[in-house]
Amino acid sequence: MPQLLHLDSSADLNNSVSRAVTAHFSDVWHEQSPDHSVIHRDLHRDPLPHLPTSAMHWAPHLRTPDEVVAPDAEALQKTLIDEVVSADVVVIGAPMYNWSVPSTLKAWIDYVHVPGVTVPFDGPTRPLEGKPVVVVSSRGNEYGAGTPDFGTDHAVPLLQQVLGTALGMDLFVVLVDLTLSTRVPGMAPLVPRSRDSLDAAWVAVADLAARLG
Amino acid sequence: MPQLLHLDSSADLNNSVSRAVTAHFSDVWHEQSPDHSVIHRDLHRDPLPHLPTSAMHWAPHLRTPDEVVAPDAEALQKTLIDEVVSADVVVIGAPMYNWSVPSTLKAWIDYVHVPGVTVPFDGPTRPLEGKPVVVVSSRGNEYGAGTPDFGTDHAVPLLQQVLGTALGMDLFVVLVDLTLSTRVPGMAPLVPRSRDSLDAAWVAVADLAARLG
Repeated sequence: MPQLLHLDSSADLNNSVSRAVTAHFSDVWHEQSPDHSVIHRDLHRDPLPHLPTSAMHWAPHLRTPDEVVAPDAEALQKTLIDEVVSADVVVIGAPMYNWSVPSTLKAWIDYVHVPGVTVPFDGPTRPLEGKPVVVVSSRGNEYGAGTPDFGTDHAVPLLQQVLGTALGMDLFVVLVDLTLSTRVPGMAPLVPRSRDSLDAAWVAVADLAARLG
Repeated sequence: MPQLLHLDSSADLNNSVSRAVTAHFSDVWHEQSPDHSVIHRDLHRDPLPHLPTSAMHWAPHLRTPDEVVAPDAEALQKTLIDEVVSADVVVIGAPMYNWSVPSTLKAWIDYVHVPGVTVPFDGPTRPLEGKPVVVVSSRGNEYGAGTPDFGTDHAVPLLQQVLGTALGMDLFVVLVDLTLSTRVPGMAPLVPRSRDSLDAAWVAVADLAARLG
């Protein structure tokens, strides 16, 4: 049974663009066969506690004697890691908040990026290697090469570093640009470009869901 | 009465480098005169909830009719903004966790970066403009120009963007590099360089505390 892990982190439950696009991915995935199942973890509605101790950055066997982790925190970390390891495909809704990811998504990253468990340290352990992950990054502005804000996106490059380079996942990035164009008066001329970006993302996630399914 | 706002976000209560360096800043500040006072907000011991709604990214007068904020969340946001606005100087302990800031510090950023309140939107509102802020960034590796990991630091450039460019604060960055050199066997040859980096940071924060005091 092919399984999708669908993560959302938008703090907007009414008009979120990233939620709409990940839901479309999830729908198309689900339509591939009656066996295609989805686990939906909503990091905003059901937020993770901030990492309770830096000891959890390390596999248990790599911790120092003074690094103690409470059993419930240890259990939560194991649940989150098992969940992403057992998925066949992952889709992550990652709206840009203040040039980075929401704190809810950063908390998830800090639970699952663990040297000695998900990242090689004293051995080749890398259980997520090659697993496809689709990141849907919605952002108020645009940040591509040649734009005035180029270089200030610390959301997508961060996810590329963590998910791609460190965890070894097979990363696909779907951008939705200029989501603030309908809200910020000075951006009104950019509304058509924003719509085009959303249309392209809609097509891209459907293609990816079919291809990865 | 000159007032310092001292923020920590390390999830390590035993051996944190960033906590040691911000505490040294705070001590030197405090020694400037009996009138130099310190407010210490520990974002790890007393964590902020993740931003409960994206409506809080906007000043109340800029919210849409469906963007509703609970009174206790509104009050917390006001407390955090008033606290930083009323400080004369701010020092922030910002350890790099997985190439970015801890989720606890990202949550604080998301509470205080508010168009129409702390960032100009429909007027010139910018109450933090010119206020000195010292960021202490401790990191396991090194990320300067010419190093293999150059370009993967999404902590300091993020804080420069938010605190400096957007909020208009007068930003001073103090780096402590290679904090993992005592823990990662392959980094052992870098221990002396790590010590030098910490020594330099120690001197830098004392100078800044005296200068900004």
